[in-house]
Amino acid sequence: MLRTNNCGELREAHLGQEVIICGWVQRIRDKGGRAWIDLRDRYGMTQLIFEEGSTSVVLMNLVRTLGREYVIRVKGMVIERLSKNPKLPTGDIEIQVHHLEILNEAALPPFLIEDETDGGDELRMKYRYLDLRRTPVRKNLELRHQISRKIRTYLDNHNFIEVETPYLIKSTPEGARDFIVPSRMNPGQFYALPQSPQTFKQLLMVSGLDRYYQIVKCFRDEDLRADRQPEFTQIDCEMSFVEQEDVLEMFEGLVTFLFKEIKQIDLKKFPRLTYADALKYYGSDKPDLRFDMCFVELNEVIGSSVFPLFNEAELVVGINAIDCSTYSRKQLDELVNFVRKPQVGATALIYVKCNLDGSFKSSVDKFFDQDTLRTWAECFKAKPGDLILILAGKKDQTRKALNDLRLEMGDRLGLRNNDKICPAWVIDFPLFEWDEETQRYHAMHHPFTSPKSEYMGQVDKDPESIKASAYDMIINGVEIGGGSIRIHKRALQSKMFDVLGFTKEEAEAQFSFLLGAFEYGAPPHGGIAFGLDRLCCLFGGVESIRDFIAFPKNSSGRDVMIDSPSLLDEEQLTTLGIQIEKN
Amino acid sequence: MLRTNNCGELREAHLGQEVIICGWVQRIRDKGGRAWIDLRDRYGMTQLIFEEGSTSVVLMNLVRTLGREYVIRVKGMVIERLSKNPKLPTGDIEIQVHHLEILNEAALPPFLIEDETDGGDELRMKYRYLDLRRTPVRKNLELRHQISRKIRTYLDNHNFIEVETPYLIKSTPEGARDFIVPSRMNPGQFYALPQSPQTFKQLLMVSGLDRYYQIVKCFRDEDLRADRQPEFTQIDCEMSFVEQEDVLEMFEGLVTFLFKEIKQIDLKKFPRLTYADALKYYGSDKPDLRFDMCFVELNEVIGSSVFPLFNEAELVVGINAIDCSTYSRKQLDELVNFVRKPQVGATALIYVKCNLDGSFKSSVDKFFDQDTLRTWAECFKAKPGDLILILAGKKDQTRKALNDLRLEMGDRLGLRNNDKICPAWVIDFPLFEWDEETQRYHAMHHPFTSPKSEYMGQVDKDPESIKASAYDMIINGVEIGGGSIRIHKRALQSKMFDVLGFTKEEAEAQFSFLLGAFEYGAPPHGGIAFGLDRLCCLFGGVESIRDFIAFPKNSSGRDVMIDSPSLLDEEQLTTLGIQIEKN
Repeated sequence: MLRTNNCGELREAHLGQEVIICGWVQRIRDKGGRAWIDLRDRYGMTQLIFEEGSTSVVLMNLVRTLGREYVIRVKGMVIERLSKNPKLPTGDIEIQVHHLEILNEAALPPFLIEDETDGGDELRMKYRYLDLRRTPVRKNLELRHQISRKIRTYLDNHNFIEVETPYLIKSTPEGARDFIVPSRMNPGQFYALPQSPQTFKQLLMVSGLDRYYQIVKCFRDEDLRADRQPEFTQIDCEMSFVEQEDVLEMFEGLVTFLFKEIKQIDLKKFPRLTYADALKYYGSDKPDLRFDMCFVELNEVIGSSVFPLFNEAELVVGINAIDCSTYSRKQLDELVNFVRKPQVGATALIYVKCNLDGSFKSSVDKFFDQDTLRTWAECFKAKPGDLILILAGKKDQTRKALNDLRLEMGDRLGLRNNDKICPAWVIDFPLFEWDEETQRYHAMHHPFTSPKSEYMGQVDKDPESIKASAYDMIINGVEIGGGSIRIHKRALQSKMFDVLGFTKEEAEAQFSFLLGAFEYGAPPHGGIAFGLDRLCCLFGGVESIRDFIAFPKNSSGRDVMIDSPSLLDEEQLTTLGIQIEKN
Repeated sequence: MLRTNNCGELREAHLGQEVIICGWVQRIRDKGGRAWIDLRDRYGMTQLIFEEGSTSVVLMNLVRTLGREYVIRVKGMVIERLSKNPKLPTGDIEIQVHHLEILNEAALPPFLIEDETDGGDELRMKYRYLDLRRTPVRKNLELRHQISRKIRTYLDNHNFIEVETPYLIKSTPEGARDFIVPSRMNPGQFYALPQSPQTFKQLLMVSGLDRYYQIVKCFRDEDLRADRQPEFTQIDCEMSFVEQEDVLEMFEGLVTFLFKEIKQIDLKKFPRLTYADALKYYGSDKPDLRFDMCFVELNEVIGSSVFPLFNEAELVVGINAIDCSTYSRKQLDELVNFVRKPQVGATALIYVKCNLDGSFKSSVDKFFDQDTLRTWAECFKAKPGDLILILAGKKDQTRKALNDLRLEMGDRLGLRNNDKICPAWVIDFPLFEWDEETQRYHAMHHPFTSPKSEYMGQVDKDPESIKASAYDMIINGVEIGGGSIRIHKRALQSKMFDVLGFTKEEAEAQFSFLLGAFEYGAPPHGGIAFGLDRLCCLFGGVESIRDFIAFPKNSSGRDVMIDSPSLLDEEQLTTLGIQIEKN
């Protein structure tokens, strides 16, 4: 090694030792007769000292040629610092350098390599290798590594085997868009990159592997939102001879273990919420449970009313914001504007202030008297000082809008603190959802999900009523993972494909291997997949998954650092037998 | 869980317990009044017993409907076996079943699910999920998992961080052919799948990550040989502030650790062999060192000779096969035919039998007398009873052919036993090799490899003489891993690209991110990559990497199980802006 020690480990116990350390020049302070350098590596920071008199003139001059981010190697003696720095683990010592070698020079970085930097997003993406030098970014990658290790520890201890499934697989039109890969050896034919190893892990269950996992890259060619990447990492798991309860228990155990090991947080048993209740009480299948503020439906209480908005509404539903009755006109206007934003999509917001004197002041005083408002307040269990916020309209839209408003109120009231961890299982998802656009049923989870046992015989009758053995794990309003018990019989799987509008030929062309496998003794099985990137965000208390990806792509799917995707030689395309379409 | 126990864990200690187990019917023996079933799962095999009298008629009848590979669930009592089977861990007990449920039926498998099967290669590939049920195949996957775990343990303990690098990267014409991926969002542009994460791991060193590893899929679009797959797995590693010696020590440590932990084998310090010596003494840069049989060159001893073959030969070189002087005419003819095979490519094989009486009998007695043959024998340190085998011709071809002959003799003499593990480092590779076809230099390792320090100033003068800081780890004649110290300065990297025939524009277009990174303080660094598939073969004592890949492709790059690659919808291609070339 070019060093005897790293920049994070020297302490008073090393005083008097001759050491060699290497690293990057973080900072140089030159006070004429004395100069200090903060030398940085992955492990920490160590102060170097150079003093006229004890340091040679040649060396002093060399020090003065250094710049930020130069890579140097120094030999010297560990000495006690005059003014110690208790904030730094190495703060008790410094190195009196007697030999310095420049391992590499550095041009002035395009942004500050400090915890707080002056570099904008695009610039830091272009120079990602410099951004990764910053401690908070490096710590994100370290945290990701730690999470992956702990996941493996837990799953290994529970008899799971990691099996690598192929990346060059087969395109299926179901679900999101595939990335495809032309095959040179099979001209005119294409592989696809996996959106998930779903069918392969099911085949591993058919093969009797019993418990499988894989931390694996998956690919979706979708238009990217802020928190989406074309390639992302899944913790993919599957178990045989299980029922839903077994899967929930195993993976609640995993996440509980992770929080304990990594954050020293003891999570209680996860509450469970049916999909129907999640929508009814929170307007979302991934409610943020760090705060209460449940939906209360008023349709029955209101009955038929003189107020046109309510009268025409499929759903009248509200939330109670505790201690907000003192909201000003301005604050209420902000909320009205919020719900009217196109992405929220409500037309009007009705409020009822529960005044401290027991009276009520509402935006619908014209239509409803104090007694009626009091009845409403009772429905919300609202107390004097609270503020009731009500939306009305079409059921699905109104729930969605009120969910947005609920989260907005949570933010305003400081109820969405990242230190609080509120997990839950959402269960009893519908098996199918009707798609207006294509005029057919879609699988809500995926086509391999089993109906709950009580619906087993009626998959092709009244599909919308059928509930699936599917489950999502949510934490703080984010879907962390989801899975299901799978179909393991050919007849049922075929029927599923029928309901989903596959012809026999299409089902055969795309999934004959799976249907075939189910004929040779497929065991009951089920599993789950977690999004590792998103899980890391949760542990890191950070919003964007990009922060936990070493080399992320931007929202056009470009890696601006390596400048990819890029044009190819005509020859390369010819070899593959493909052409770019001329417009 | 559908079971209380698995099929591998019940022992005498469980006698009298009521258990539920699930698994596959391996075998049914029906002796009229009594029937036994061997029930199999990943964990083992347990015997079930059904007896008329104690077993109900309904249940007896149900048992008689079962077939091989049916998936069943049974409840019963653990009882002592009358005739115990000491070969089976569960051989002391059996289950007296009182309840049986068929979880899934099974058609007759297309081949026997036994350790020794009657299924051919293609059939087993098509039904890979059934082949994976066979114990030896499943054990291969379990071994792979164990090896991966131990690798992570070692590297984690040495401060390495696993970082995921991207799969959608940029095509570079250097090296093997890339698989490419059209970008929908950037029409006419393409990603490439990585042949290795080489440049990314170097950027991670520039970013100060210090020690990186990744167990990662890599892709090469090459024509496949028996032991190649289009996708394969690398253990990819990189370290900063190291010299060659540090890398060798760290990864010799890794492999030593693996053999100790997995095979309980203590490896001694790995010998080192220069590339030049490997070629001179074994005719290969990956010699099988399980046996000696070094090459001996005879040119000097022979001088100018009357034997035309020797006289015209650039190299006359042989090996000594101990105790083979009694080889018959037939055996010698076999060897002659062996060396004349096109893939070996020699024209003639000269032999000298060192007879037990001290005389010599050779195929060139016409040209050389006994004294001359005795001189040769001394060069080979041959003793009475040995057989000297000599080839002559062009240097490189002759060495290659003699390497083949040496391995053939090793096989014939039983010297290549898989229980013997003989690792070594091959070092001091040339930096460049001249390619006749393209009439330019190629990088022997890759373009990022550093010359050894003593050649640092002369990369552009006399390139062929330059030795690289590159190294391969070989075990039993197989290259297990290879790596190098990398270039970390822009000027040297640019000069490398010059020698390799890149124009400035090409170098810039393909590697500007790396050249740029070297300007901002790149540390000295180096690394290595191991082939995980091949490493598994070595631990499993198996020849083909396919045996350690869950879902391998055949030699045309097809996955015959899922039938991929496949045709795409015209619409999918249109969305991507590409067309298939019409011939």
